Amino acid sequence: MSDTHSALTPAASPLLDATARASLRLLLNPDSIAVIGASEDSGKFGGRVIEYLLKFGYRGRLIPINPRVATVRGLQAYPSIRSQPHRIDVAVIAAPARYVADAIDECAQSAVRACVLITAEFAEVGDEGARRQAQVVERARAHGIRLLGPNCLGYVNTHGKIALSPSLSLSALDTIEPGGVGLVSQSGALMGSLIAMGTDIGVRFSTCVSVGNQADLELADFIDYMADDATTRLICLYVEGVPSPRRFLQALAHARARGKRVLMVKSGRTESGVRAVKSHTASMAGSYAALRAASEAHGALVMDDVFDMLAVAECLKRHGPLTANGVAVFSASGGAGASLVDSLSDYGLSLASLTEGSIRELAPWLPQTHRHLPVDFGVARLSRQADGASPFGAIEAVLRIVMADPNVHAGVVMLTTGSMMAPIAQAVAAVGRLVDKPLLFVNAAGRAGAQAQAIINAAAHLSFKTSHDAFRVIATLLRDFDQRGSPAPAARRELSLEPVVKTLPQGLLNEHDTKRLLAAAGIPVTRERLARDADEAARIALEIGFPVVLKAQAPSLSHKSDSGGVALDLRSEQAVREAYRAIAFAVESRAGITIEGCLVQEMIEAQAEIIVGTRWDEQFGALVLVGSGGIYVELLRDIRVAAAPISANAAIGLLRSLKSAPILTGFRGRPALALEPIAQAIEAISQLATNLGPRLRELDANPLLVMPQRVVVADARAVLQGAP
Amino acid sequence: MSDTHSALTPAASPLLDATARASLRLLLNPDSIAVIGASEDSGKFGGRVIEYLLKFGYRGRLIPINPRVATVRGLQAYPSIRSQPHRIDVAVIAAPARYVADAIDECAQSAVRACVLITAEFAEVGDEGARRQAQVVERARAHGIRLLGPNCLGYVNTHGKIALSPSLSLSALDTIEPGGVGLVSQSGALMGSLIAMGTDIGVRFSTCVSVGNQADLELADFIDYMADDATTRLICLYVEGVPSPRRFLQALAHARARGKRVLMVKSGRTESGVRAVKSHTASMAGSYAALRAASEAHGALVMDDVFDMLAVAECLKRHGPLTANGVAVFSASGGAGASLVDSLSDYGLSLASLTEGSIRELAPWLPQTHRHLPVDFGVARLSRQADGASPFGAIEAVLRIVMADPNVHAGVVMLTTGSMMAPIAQAVAAVGRLVDKPLLFVNAAGRAGAQAQAIINAAAHLSFKTSHDAFRVIATLLRDFDQRGSPAPAARRELSLEPVVKTLPQGLLNEHDTKRLLAAAGIPVTRERLARDADEAARIALEIGFPVVLKAQAPSLSHKSDSGGVALDLRSEQAVREAYRAIAFAVESRAGITIEGCLVQEMIEAQAEIIVGTRWDEQFGALVLVGSGGIYVELLRDIRVAAAPISANAAIGLLRSLKSAPILTGFRGRPALALEPIAQAIEAISQLATNLGPRLRELDANPLLVMPQRVVVADARAVLQGAP
Repeated sequence: MSDTHSALTPAASPLLDATARASLRLLLNPDSIAVIGASEDSGKFGGRVIEYLLKFGYRGRLIPINPRVATVRGLQAYPSIRSQPHRIDVAVIAAPARYVADAIDECAQSAVRACVLITAEFAEVGDEGARRQAQVVERARAHGIRLLGPNCLGYVNTHGKIALSPSLSLSALDTIEPGGVGLVSQSGALMGSLIAMGTDIGVRFSTCVSVGNQADLELADFIDYMADDATTRLICLYVEGVPSPRRFLQALAHARARGKRVLMVKSGRTESGVRAVKSHTASMAGSYAALRAASEAHGALVMDDVFDMLAVAECLKRHGPLTANGVAVFSASGGAGASLVDSLSDYGLSLASLTEGSIRELAPWLPQTHRHLPVDFGVARLSRQADGASPFGAIEAVLRIVMADPNVHAGVVMLTTGSMMAPIAQAVAAVGRLVDKPLLFVNAAGRAGAQAQAIINAAAHLSFKTSHDAFRVIATLLRDFDQRGSPAPAARRELSLEPVVKTLPQGLLNEHDTKRLLAAAGIPVTRERLARDADEAARIALEIGFPVVLKAQAPSLSHKSDSGGVALDLRSEQAVREAYRAIAFAVESRAGITIEGCLVQEMIEAQAEIIVGTRWDEQFGALVLVGSGGIYVELLRDIRVAAAPISANAAIGLLRSLKSAPILTGFRGRPALALEPIAQAIEAISQLATNLGPRLRELDANPLLVMPQRVVVADARAVLQGAP
Repeated sequence: MSDTHSALTPAASPLLDATARASLRLLLNPDSIAVIGASEDSGKFGGRVIEYLLKFGYRGRLIPINPRVATVRGLQAYPSIRSQPHRIDVAVIAAPARYVADAIDECAQSAVRACVLITAEFAEVGDEGARRQAQVVERARAHGIRLLGPNCLGYVNTHGKIALSPSLSLSALDTIEPGGVGLVSQSGALMGSLIAMGTDIGVRFSTCVSVGNQADLELADFIDYMADDATTRLICLYVEGVPSPRRFLQALAHARARGKRVLMVKSGRTESGVRAVKSHTASMAGSYAALRAASEAHGALVMDDVFDMLAVAECLKRHGPLTANGVAVFSASGGAGASLVDSLSDYGLSLASLTEGSIRELAPWLPQTHRHLPVDFGVARLSRQADGASPFGAIEAVLRIVMADPNVHAGVVMLTTGSMMAPIAQAVAAVGRLVDKPLLFVNAAGRAGAQAQAIINAAAHLSFKTSHDAFRVIATLLRDFDQRGSPAPAARRELSLEPVVKTLPQGLLNEHDTKRLLAAAGIPVTRERLARDADEAARIALEIGFPVVLKAQAPSLSHKSDSGGVALDLRSEQAVREAYRAIAFAVESRAGITIEGCLVQEMIEAQAEIIVGTRWDEQFGALVLVGSGGIYVELLRDIRVAAAPISANAAIGLLRSLKSAPILTGFRGRPALALEPIAQAIEAISQLATNLGPRLRELDANPLLVMPQRVVVADARAVLQGAP
């Protein structure tokens, strides 16, 4: 656990040592490759690896290994790796699983430095496969050979023209265009689809790696490598499970230190998804919330959709972050434009308002009634017919003026069928190169827009199949910017908790004990004391001040209010005495429990309620949860999770990102509440969780009552456990 | 207004009389067509109309009219319509706007029955254009000629092989396949894109009409026609504004009577969208909520996205409604499968659980660990390798078994790049023909999946570009079924309101007056009386019973609570007297107003709060609004609108469709509240609005307090106005 603990402190140092880094560089940039099981048959893995290496122009030495043929695709073949005379950097092994261990031994004899194991049927198929995998790893380690896979689809290094992969996504490509988006995928088939779909829409990759079963090299190694790789500008991850959280987070920290944004999709974010992932890989899915919180704390942008991830990465690479809401919409159909505008709000986006300056500049191109968003190019054409300019010129001018407007932060051009499709595409490509804002092209003309689409593709301009795809990307860019404040984890602050902790029982703590713990961490709780009889309750109430609340206390009493165990708004000693007796009677008769006493508590009228909680995660350590309170918490599903500890500043960011934030920040005439006291309580609760570590399994302060200038925990529960 | 009123009563009779229906039949099924402005040049409207009519095999007589050429595309051309010898059913006019009126005259001389006016620059470009349009309509009416357009892109009748349209969407098609989806669009460019995109994904149309400026024939006419058209099974509408609500709703009613579902997208559902529509067409956008409510009352399915609308229509045509949640997910990538499953919940969809029977049936095809959803065809392939069956057979068997499972109501197959792409596509096409549930194909393999996509296209199977597109369609099908109960409008029930109404002032009514109106309609309101001084307040409180609420009453007092005008939870005569004096002082000093008195009101502890309102819409009459109450109403944006009057039964449907419905129907241990008393209050309020008609501009019962077995209006406001 101490290992997991320190994982949350960002590491300034890279994960990989010089030797490991050199091995990875060689694996991904080999001067010589041997393909064991090479063949002319593109139906076979070994056939396609050779085919694609040749097709995309691999410039190093390529050695087919096949005992049954003399040549493969014109290259001299050898019966075994031993029988060929060259130094081999990387060997690709696509042989059946039972032969792989021996193939590794053979590679070692020829000084092979790294093997790519395409072969499947290892750990992913159960215990026998896992044993086979362990044996292969053992042999490789003994020889100092690094492994990619098994059960992987290799990698593609576009800058090196090395398509060392049997993925059929490569069959439909003529070239692999170099770019800046790195991709590490825990699913080979999905990597194939990501390359295919990404290339189609204009994403350009640096290196794409399928890590397979991660028997040796894992996600973290490639993140760390790409952080230092000059060709990679951003790193996209598809993650199913993280074998070593510490290494993973250290790699994220290194990427952040090198200024490389990490984007990430982790499957298993829902319960059904968790079951699907478990069934797919041998590894446990782990807690999605914990991985997400820890990754966000290290600056990663965690997304829901793998294909969207690529488009967002390409946009970030080309244009940097979106700095404000404000979208311009263009089409040559008034109907399409109106529909697009309606759709914006579904994604939390707003239509930009053009400045007076832009409106003036548009005068030569659009009639007075149409110098606003959405732009209708159909009208631009009418102007052109009047003054003789070309349609391209008018469209290009309008796009340029609007995209330069300071209120416009992104643009979406929807192509509908019509006579101006080609000029529109040309203008988008031309203006897209000039502006430093995303200008997304949506082809809603289907096959009729093929020529326009070809113009867009030739310009390597980003394009989308539907407006929804484009709007999801812009919404993600905006969310990323809004939550950009999410900082590195805060430093641990030592709290003096032991004097209180040693007086607490193990297991589920009652309200009063949990509040003692909270108070020890400096978190304000309601003034309260335990009364053992009605007269004591009245005395305490007098001390605390009216009105007060009475709550039955008994170890086995879980639902106090259902059992008549709560009385609110008691305004006199007499009312307190009567309420005490009524509670004792009600709990005895309804729940069959004799109460130990009643908590006498100040009654507070709050402006809002929130929930603050903590959870201990076995992989990622302490988490802090913040959500909207009251009965609507379920309806809004409004919970944000962060890695503990967090600063009060970061807590304010969490609060502002809640769906229910307007309740706190003021809306419809409600006053804004001070966020600082709430944030300080969240910070303190996160420090409490960090200090207790695995001993605090979970804690819920619910509700944390929010008043205009202060907060107080009105009820709370926790589960304590001795150090494991 | 009486016209608008009766519009909401469904008409059993069709909208069109026999003559009009015959004209429409001739317009859309002409035996002879003259194209005025015909040309060899596909860059011109008149060139493309001829080109497409020929290309798609028009079987009637086709007459090019062009004074400057002898033939067009091998057809004999005539200098004018008069100079040709044949009877002409339909003339297409693409001549400049200023010549159109004369062209109509000429058509009349040759007994032309209908004209399609492609020409633009009429009402949509301002007053001069509107005058020109009025002149054209006047001439046509004088001659008994019906008009489609102007400013339209004609129509396509697939069953008649009549592509009477210059839309460039037709350039990319080789054939126009007949089908059952009718389309009427108020935007020509959008119709083109809908034909292009719809055809691409497997939608098959019957007739598509671009109505343009609706100078003569309008949306309603084509809805009514398609309701009786044997080739049309469902009707899709893209609407910007409805010129005559009465005719529009009558056509919807006729379509419903003929068992044809109407699907509809209206742009201008947001404020920005309204401005965009106004700028696009001459017509006012009208109230989106009112049009939507009235259309839903007539059975229409109102959607947000035009492209989704086509896919939903095709699914409804092929498979009928979705009867329950429960989606099966298939792919050949475990990673893609897990991601898809995660994504389901974003759309309110659930992964189905297979029955024991299905799991047993899957035994020959899948290993024991993988007989569940999502299905991984990669594993199916492994089984095949073990027992020698073909991959197609295994995939087809698995698809068939899963889709037949009674827990599965829809399926999504995501194609990722891999070796089984073609067999997967073949199996989807084969099983898709057999099952009576939507089985949606998503191509996530890009160009690498071209062969598989071709198989799907050849089978005319529905396909999607992203899983989001498929899930949106399934979610819409599910919503449609869930809200299917939404019935025809209820009958008007006569209320005796005049005795109260004549005592009420005009304009904004205060709380007490509004409640008198509500009470007269049989709606329970809080017991209350107006007190003129502190002693009277105390006497009234004693009669009503403690605790009570005091609310200041004064005509100009709008925000009572901000001015210290409200006191809650008063439990004694003394407390009431003190509160009265405090309120009078506070309102006087803070707002500078002398109060008329205070309303003394019973104080009620409610389990939930809702809002019920009414609005008068100039086009569609009385509407009733139901929403969640309390401070979260803004956050949830949880309002449903229906055409008044509605039955209590329909009101229960509205309540159940609220996002906050769980608060009423019970969740997390909260008791379910009786919906009937709420529904009866909604029904009564809707009858109140119907009885008062345009005299009740708006009314808000906010909150309507919900107790376990009864409801009561605790506060209310209304605006009354004499009949206009």
